[in-house]
Amino acid sequence: MLDGLIAAIKPLDLGAMEACQLRLDNLTKPLGSLHGLEQLACRLAGITGDPRPRKLKKCIILAAADHGVAREGVSAYPQEVTPQMVMNFCRGGAAINVFAKHAGAELVLVDVGVAADLPEIPGLRREKIAYGTGNIAAGPAMTREQTLQAIAVGVRIAREEMTRGVRVIGLGEMGIGNTTPSTAIIACYAGRPVRDLTGQGTGVSGTGLERKAKIIEQALAVNRPDPQDPIDVLAKVGGLEIAALAGVALAAAAGGAAVVLDGVITGAAALIATQMAPGVREYLIGSHFSCEPAHKAALSLMDIPAYLHLDMRLGEGTGAALGITLIDAGLHVLNDMKTFGEAQVAVAQDGPGALRQRAEL
Amino acid sequence: MLDGLIAAIKPLDLGAMEACQLRLDNLTKPLGSLHGLEQLACRLAGITGDPRPRKLKKCIILAAADHGVAREGVSAYPQEVTPQMVMNFCRGGAAINVFAKHAGAELVLVDVGVAADLPEIPGLRREKIAYGTGNIAAGPAMTREQTLQAIAVGVRIAREEMTRGVRVIGLGEMGIGNTTPSTAIIACYAGRPVRDLTGQGTGVSGTGLERKAKIIEQALAVNRPDPQDPIDVLAKVGGLEIAALAGVALAAAAGGAAVVLDGVITGAAALIATQMAPGVREYLIGSHFSCEPAHKAALSLMDIPAYLHLDMRLGEGTGAALGITLIDAGLHVLNDMKTFGEAQVAVAQDGPGALRQRAEL
Repeated sequence: MLDGLIAAIKPLDLGAMEACQLRLDNLTKPLGSLHGLEQLACRLAGITGDPRPRKLKKCIILAAADHGVAREGVSAYPQEVTPQMVMNFCRGGAAINVFAKHAGAELVLVDVGVAADLPEIPGLRREKIAYGTGNIAAGPAMTREQTLQAIAVGVRIAREEMTRGVRVIGLGEMGIGNTTPSTAIIACYAGRPVRDLTGQGTGVSGTGLERKAKIIEQALAVNRPDPQDPIDVLAKVGGLEIAALAGVALAAAAGGAAVVLDGVITGAAALIATQMAPGVREYLIGSHFSCEPAHKAALSLMDIPAYLHLDMRLGEGTGAALGITLIDAGLHVLNDMKTFGEAQVAVAQDGPGALRQRAEL
Repeated sequence: MLDGLIAAIKPLDLGAMEACQLRLDNLTKPLGSLHGLEQLACRLAGITGDPRPRKLKKCIILAAADHGVAREGVSAYPQEVTPQMVMNFCRGGAAINVFAKHAGAELVLVDVGVAADLPEIPGLRREKIAYGTGNIAAGPAMTREQTLQAIAVGVRIAREEMTRGVRVIGLGEMGIGNTTPSTAIIACYAGRPVRDLTGQGTGVSGTGLERKAKIIEQALAVNRPDPQDPIDVLAKVGGLEIAALAGVALAAAAGGAAVVLDGVITGAAALIATQMAPGVREYLIGSHFSCEPAHKAALSLMDIPAYLHLDMRLGEGTGAALGITLIDAGLHVLNDMKTFGEAQVAVAQDGPGALRQRAEL
């Protein structure tokens, strides 16, 4: 299954991107003056193969799961908060409900491994593979088989969304303790001390932060994940929701949809996906810089720019939702602005703007 | 007129801000985890005096004017582009039309000094004080009288908008050559070499950029503006639209509306306003970091954070419009998320989250 998926990932459509850039260069503004938004519009052209993508259907796939390592006290919150927050998502009272609505994105909730039985609720996908992972401080998070199953859940859900017409997929997550495995994954590739990569998560500090870094070091020492084998890394020090989100990224890239990243957990998932298939990278779009040092490290390893500095550290896909609003702003520019010719405005006296204008005429 | 305006600027409502922060701290998220958005929501509470401001009416006031210094070749575009772009704004084909719509803000267009007769068009306020400013490389931009008139135009328009119920005002501008006077203004206060503050504007580079820096140095040497007298600075090396926007900022602060900054031109206007009345500062909200080095210098002088790194350098209020969408995201968080109590989610095991929760109960 994975081999076929990876083989299906194509490079971006350069012809569509070039045609998109030509229109952007002819809009009534100084050449390149909306830099980041122009790059986002062009990227969407390359991903969709449409030189002028219009309003795109968007969703946020939020995968929830629990983590055995939570019992080491790596989070400020008890594990019961995971199912409580999933129920909060279902009732519409959480941050991501508000952010998804603000971004015009549908929220797709998936339980891949919450350590509690959740009721059958409309809008909640029940795809539980296990009641949480093993404690990575003592052994592996998952078996290789469970890891592949979790990836397959993400692949299936992303495909269903693309079948519904979705072309922009934000990644979101919920799982008390999940900055710990995410940081462990990123540490496997960053070549930097765990201590420098460990952040406060939901709010640990002081000795709590030191303990968290030690637990991550211990998890890496006990499990010895092999960075050459990203599925081994996922299985040994990852998590069920992280694996599912890696699957979402792989399937989205194979199916021609953009993947909008959130914070450190989705960064770890994306990093695993790019390790499995480097071609995924072109389909990934950054949103904000979170407070987690490992998040910046992951973005830097993948060479993905981010745009928003709000010092957010909530997760759930909240930053991804804001990133989606920036993509929409870029598409509005592309579709709704007039060109110099259409608006009868004089072009630059010299320089590339003038040349581009000639190309349009 | 100005003395009364300045006297009317009150400190933010700390009671409303405290009540707002208490609700934010009780929402189902780790304490402070939406940092920048929470700050924006709180600021709006302090500005409006409402602990839970709902959907606020928004506009972008775009002031247009020409600059005598344009004849020194400081811009990549000819001066005729100013009236052409104003007409483009009226017809809805420019970037700011698209951005204002994206942000749900009404666009208010004002000609305070375009060097051409513009037709009577619905939606264009004709408040022309002069057909452009004098060439600051050779003498003052305006008389002190003209400067006060331009400030008064901004005050009047901001008051009208507030009377219509607007509580969030984005600043926008159009004027070929206007990064040159803006940089000159900021140089009066930044205490840094003009060369380090001068940016490419609409796209000058190489020798063009060197010439631009020399023209700004010359403007300061010829006019010798007095930084202790911000109206003198405006009159000697400023511009009609910059003065009008300073007036908007003063009136908004006096009337209890938030002012959302754009790039370097609005930064110069805001800097003048804060020099006239330091109390204005609390009403100013940053949006993006533009490419202009003087913009960062102005934000830093006023100690105002910005959030978006998109390397934009278009002006018109485009960055302000994106800033308005972030304010809206903050207000959505404040109004639409549930508290721990409302959502029946367990609070943090220890730390300030738990204490706050008790405060709610």
